[in-house]
Amino acid sequence: MDLNQGRTYLAIPGPSVMPDAVLRAMHRASPNIYEGELIGMMPDILRDLKRVARTQHEAAIYIGNGHAVWEASLANVVEEGDKVLVLASGWFGHGWSDMARALGVECEVLEFGRRQPADVARVAEALAADKSHSFKAVLAVHVDTSSSAKSDIAAIRAALDSTGHSALLMVDCIASLGCDRFEMDDWGVDVMVAACQKGLMVPAGVGFVFYNDKADRVRGEMRRVSKYWDWRPRTNPEIFALHFCGTAPTHHLYGLRTALDMIHEEGLENVWKRHKILAHAIWAASETWAMQGPFELNITEPTHRSHAVTSLRIGVPHGTSLRRWTQETAGLTLGIGLGMATEEDPQSDGFFRFGHMGHVNAQMILGMLATVQTGLVALGIPHGVGGVDAAAAVIAGSDV
Amino acid sequence: MDLNQGRTYLAIPGPSVMPDAVLRAMHRASPNIYEGELIGMMPDILRDLKRVARTQHEAAIYIGNGHAVWEASLANVVEEGDKVLVLASGWFGHGWSDMARALGVECEVLEFGRRQPADVARVAEALAADKSHSFKAVLAVHVDTSSSAKSDIAAIRAALDSTGHSALLMVDCIASLGCDRFEMDDWGVDVMVAACQKGLMVPAGVGFVFYNDKADRVRGEMRRVSKYWDWRPRTNPEIFALHFCGTAPTHHLYGLRTALDMIHEEGLENVWKRHKILAHAIWAASETWAMQGPFELNITEPTHRSHAVTSLRIGVPHGTSLRRWTQETAGLTLGIGLGMATEEDPQSDGFFRFGHMGHVNAQMILGMLATVQTGLVALGIPHGVGGVDAAAAVIAGSDV
Amino acid sequence: MDLNQGRTYLAIPGPSVMPDAVLRAMHRASPNIYEGELIGMMPDILRDLKRVARTQHEAAIYIGNGHAVWEASLANVVEEGDKVLVLASGWFGHGWSDMARALGVECEVLEFGRRQPADVARVAEALAADKSHSFKAVLAVHVDTSSSAKSDIAAIRAALDSTGHSALLMVDCIASLGCDRFEMDDWGVDVMVAACQKGLMVPAGVGFVFYNDKADRVRGEMRRVSKYWDWRPRTNPEIFALHFCGTAPTHHLYGLRTALDMIHEEGLENVWKRHKILAHAIWAASETWAMQGPFELNITEPTHRSHAVTSLRIGVPHGTSLRRWTQETAGLTLGIGLGMATEEDPQSDGFFRFGHMGHVNAQMILGMLATVQTGLVALGIPHGVGGVDAAAAVIAGSDV
Amino acid sequence: MDLNQGRTYLAIPGPSVMPDAVLRAMHRASPNIYEGELIGMMPDILRDLKRVARTQHEAAIYIGNGHAVWEASLANVVEEGDKVLVLASGWFGHGWSDMARALGVECEVLEFGRRQPADVARVAEALAADKSHSFKAVLAVHVDTSSSAKSDIAAIRAALDSTGHSALLMVDCIASLGCDRFEMDDWGVDVMVAACQKGLMVPAGVGFVFYNDKADRVRGEMRRVSKYWDWRPRTNPEIFALHFCGTAPTHHLYGLRTALDMIHEEGLENVWKRHKILAHAIWAASETWAMQGPFELNITEPTHRSHAVTSLRIGVPHGTSLRRWTQETAGLTLGIGLGMATEEDPQSDGFFRFGHMGHVNAQMILGMLATVQTGLVALGIPHGVGGVDAAAAVIAGSDV
Repeated sequence: MDLNQGRTYLAIPGPSVMPDAVLRAMHRASPNIYEGELIGMMPDILRDLKRVARTQHEAAIYIGNGHAVWEASLANVVEEGDKVLVLASGWFGHGWSDMARALGVECEVLEFGRRQPADVARVAEALAADKSHSFKAVLAVHVDTSSSAKSDIAAIRAALDSTGHSALLMVDCIASLGCDRFEMDDWGVDVMVAACQKGLMVPAGVGFVFYNDKADRVRGEMRRVSKYWDWRPRTNPEIFALHFCGTAPTHHLYGLRTALDMIHEEGLENVWKRHKILAHAIWAASETWAMQGPFELNITEPTHRSHAVTSLRIGVPHGTSLRRWTQETAGLTLGIGLGMATEEDPQSDGFFRFGHMGHVNAQMILGMLATVQTGLVALGIPHGVGGVDAAAAVIAGSDV
Repeated sequence: MDLNQGRTYLAIPGPSVMPDAVLRAMHRASPNIYEGELIGMMPDILRDLKRVARTQHEAAIYIGNGHAVWEASLANVVEEGDKVLVLASGWFGHGWSDMARALGVECEVLEFGRRQPADVARVAEALAADKSHSFKAVLAVHVDTSSSAKSDIAAIRAALDSTGHSALLMVDCIASLGCDRFEMDDWGVDVMVAACQKGLMVPAGVGFVFYNDKADRVRGEMRRVSKYWDWRPRTNPEIFALHFCGTAPTHHLYGLRTALDMIHEEGLENVWKRHKILAHAIWAASETWAMQGPFELNITEPTHRSHAVTSLRIGVPHGTSLRRWTQETAGLTLGIGLGMATEEDPQSDGFFRFGHMGHVNAQMILGMLATVQTGLVALGIPHGVGGVDAAAAVIAGSDV
Repeated sequence: MDLNQGRTYLAIPGPSVMPDAVLRAMHRASPNIYEGELIGMMPDILRDLKRVARTQHEAAIYIGNGHAVWEASLANVVEEGDKVLVLASGWFGHGWSDMARALGVECEVLEFGRRQPADVARVAEALAADKSHSFKAVLAVHVDTSSSAKSDIAAIRAALDSTGHSALLMVDCIASLGCDRFEMDDWGVDVMVAACQKGLMVPAGVGFVFYNDKADRVRGEMRRVSKYWDWRPRTNPEIFALHFCGTAPTHHLYGLRTALDMIHEEGLENVWKRHKILAHAIWAASETWAMQGPFELNITEPTHRSHAVTSLRIGVPHGTSLRRWTQETAGLTLGIGLGMATEEDPQSDGFFRFGHMGHVNAQMILGMLATVQTGLVALGIPHGVGGVDAAAAVIAGSDV
Repeated sequence: MDLNQGRTYLAIPGPSVMPDAVLRAMHRASPNIYEGELIGMMPDILRDLKRVARTQHEAAIYIGNGHAVWEASLANVVEEGDKVLVLASGWFGHGWSDMARALGVECEVLEFGRRQPADVARVAEALAADKSHSFKAVLAVHVDTSSSAKSDIAAIRAALDSTGHSALLMVDCIASLGCDRFEMDDWGVDVMVAACQKGLMVPAGVGFVFYNDKADRVRGEMRRVSKYWDWRPRTNPEIFALHFCGTAPTHHLYGLRTALDMIHEEGLENVWKRHKILAHAIWAASETWAMQGPFELNITEPTHRSHAVTSLRIGVPHGTSLRRWTQETAGLTLGIGLGMATEEDPQSDGFFRFGHMGHVNAQMILGMLATVQTGLVALGIPHGVGGVDAAAAVIAGSDV
């Protein structure tokens, strides 16, 4: 008997749940792309995007996904023969370095495993060892969507500063922007990349590169930047089409406009706080389930955990069984384990992830948790009792 | 701090949650109403509607709400001076009799209070006492949305049969159709009324009258029936416009087409079973909460409870406080108490209702229950511990 | 070869072309119907509706179509044995009187044929002859959608006044509201009915009854009014649900809100002027085509013509052939002839109608006319040359 | 007085008019991107895309616009130091070569002006002169959207063959795919690029690169290809995410699925024929207007004209005046002149363009033409009489 006929809930770590208002805004005729309303909307879109990134500097919008802005950001500041230091706390740190290598860039990777954020001491050590400042940039992932580890970006900046290293600090906020606190300017981030389909609540299809003057100076010294990736013509152009190196992502811009309105109407601090409380509720449930049996949070230390995604270990084959059960029986789709494969578990069947980014509220998260708990019961997976109660206590006890 | 910024959940007993597919089907240009696709869709719409009502007889669609089909059904079979027997287990039984009275019909009301379905013995008694067969019809509400009492329609038919009474059996299935098992023909129902915005999952705006040959014979003997309410021209007309006594409810028909497809694709028996299991989960949680403190199910006897709506008693002012809390803090809107006012509680602040009709699945219902439990904690309303666990046990233990 | 793959244009006299903004507003979750946003929207919706009707008096909204409000309006002021005077300039005048007759009301019909508006002299004569004031109401259709005849409502009021007749003046503005100038209060109209799917640009499903104090006094003297039709509880009720005698037409109200915003943003005078100029363009084309061959405007005298619908005579079987050609070849759907059947032309194959109501602009109307002209050429139907040029001249020469 | 309140018509040469069905398909929740429906849809999407391109070879989909696939296609086969021959018949030929140059590629540009397609004799000459086969590719634009010149791709292939030149033939079909006949395999095209927002009727946001074995062999010999642009991982990958180098353009894929269904349901040959007849109608009108006054088709020779876009010359300031008039007065937005600036006309005020690509039918095109003719009259721009009549004759006389 299926109990999934009803509104389904996609609780994967991106794409996230799209607000009705965003989808409605995108259900429209194509606008003129040479003059008129859409052109007039751009300055405010860019302003409001930058407010989400907490930067006074520049923003470029690319039709593309997260990988596109990985490549775009790199293409503006590094080229064949350059060297970067990559901080890897999961699949996506390696993914970004793969993009760099394919551009001919040498990558020194600091591997922090699958359960830890960047170890800032090791970062400082590596920077200090690089006397010649051969690293042109440090590539850090704020939240690695695979491991759900959150690195301390301000501390990494401090490591750069304390070692006096000149490298650019480039940060991937794809999974964290609009969810976890991020302060581009205050934290001294030179380049930041993000995409629209997670905390920004817009269907996949546009990505963002934010960069400051220091980064743009490096750009200025590049021998050549491909036209599509070049962020300069995209920034403050006289002609609208240059914003996008050609045709604009017309419908996404309307969706983005609406999503930015929602974020700023709620208030970015409130958005962060909402994600924080809901994440704490998820952790409380998870830690309770973990008291007995195989259930385990991938990231042990709470301050290292993302507020947008939570990776879980539950033992083969329980991760996959549980995902199947919640989807087929209850209408809830959980995220697969990503980048967690081992020889014993080549399909990551012992893992799953909660996505809790963007358009999420207490009734959704409580439904997700209660469904997972029901699945644990139904499948006979041993677990500590009272997970949902623990989550409820967090939410009930928050200063709501 | 609000945690309601996310997808909201309207868990009131109608209108219910509209499926995306239904809304999408309604987002379209107006069709031609004189020839073409829409005209061609009608026979199958009527066939599939009748399959939901479990009848081989006739169906008429009215642009209107539940009150409209209350009046429509009456207008075809009773007139000034006629007399009907009304079975009242809540607000809506009285509502239907008010419609009848305004048509000049005399109503004898059997009052069963606010916590019981129709008492069939009393019905039989009243019918037996009506030697002259002065009751032209018995008006029964299958599920009264206010009390959530479900009456035994087959037993009421048996009472008519055993007393040999000739009255029509007219049943209001507005809250139950597509949720609770209902067998129009097998149970000997002569006239049944329903509306689209509950189990049928279509935005409010159309209602239905189903009737059999016996009812139509009574219609045939009427001195006069108003053109808008007359069901005869609406049934099997040669001209499409007669189906609706004028312009068709164009967009609703597209929504209804999609909703009927969803129901029959799932299978009506499965739809009923899904509602049943989810209702049992709700009751399990509610009965657990009721073990301590003021929480109480309005209908004590499980077999008297609806599978589509559940009325709850929680003491003044907890009903209203809880509703406010879940809406403002968590994004969940619960139903108000209806028809429950007393001198001590003129605003029904001690009541609320769960709607669980139509497009509902396990993750939604578990989210609703976990949110309510969280609210009970947050507001310090005493309650038995383990409500969500009890609901989870029901769902986990169902033959899924 | 079909050339109809593209955006289709439904140019029938209702339902009309729905604005994207209206459809978008209706693509949404069901709202709470007990408290919150929707309830808060009602006063302004009613205010803005009354501004379209040009009345300071009352408005009641019914879930229903035009026939529903025909019946609703009658049900509040006439009953069995009453008598009304009906002015018929086409199918719909007779339709309204049929509704009245089915309520037991005696109808004296002044028949003006299919090509003329109400002849006010004959109306005055009939009123003068009714010394006993047996007519409780005069039923007039402002624009008869079948003939496209527009009657002079102010003159009919003058006839009532000059004869000192006490009858209510009831007017059907279903086809004209929001298209042709109509001044309910200034013209002394007591009851007016309209529906949403024409000039008001909302998918079929709600209708309106506007009434003044005099009409309400008549209502007050009625022996009984059915609950669904009674306009009193619907007007200024304390409880939202009374507005609609039950569940509100939730999604239609959002659509209506948007449509009213569009109308008042443009300005009602501008809306009327737009319809006027476009109608003149249509007439100019039609009169040109009529110079040679069978083409003929149904209403000869321009001041008698509607600005929202134009009925045309083109000879059997050209009406049907032309409609088929424009739909299958070009993506344009024209209105059928309605109420024009004769013995020689039982299917009205010699007629068709242009709908030009609501969401229409110059590019749409010019496309409609150019397509029809192309069809005339393609089908070899003799016609005067230069129809589109004549329409262009009107539009180009308007004080745009 | 504005007559633009109604359905607007964006008749620019891309983005084009989006079908309601496409927009409806995109109005949906995000799908799972790791397993399920979306993953299952990909093989058929690629198959049906290749059917539109008339190729048995490979297709890669990029989140991006036309410029993105310009860069993507180049990045797979040329690198710094390589040389290409560019055939320029307008702005977009130069645009593509600018993308190449920014990759460090040397471009020899054959300039054919703004009013002629590629002169194949000159192409053959250039190829013959390149004894060393230094041109690694020939870049040709099938239809240049700025000039509306259509080049003879098969003849260019013949020039390559007859000179025995080894260069790849790379063709930009952004403006022509799904409008003008194009036969990738039969015409011997090695690489073809297109985007979704024109003949493919999907909101801007995805582009396509089609390539054959010869092109892929060249790809195989590249020293390095950036990960985002590399077409190899995108083609027949084992993991869905590789199709898009990361997150899929979820909603666009649903839109694309619907658009491909529409195209193949109509039949590609029928789609081409529809565009051909409508283009001929536009030319007939334009040639008529051109008989007197400044109106002129940019491309004189009919066989050199696109069936998707038509560039027009009308003299300063008539182009801009006309565009403003049709938009503000009639709701029709025409395309601006692009790449036509001269010293005397720096803003291209003497030009405009008709877009007639994708979701267009006879009623739309006739409306566009009649509106333009009306504008010519309104603005007093001298023009030959009878343009719409001439267009009507083409459509009426087509073998419909």
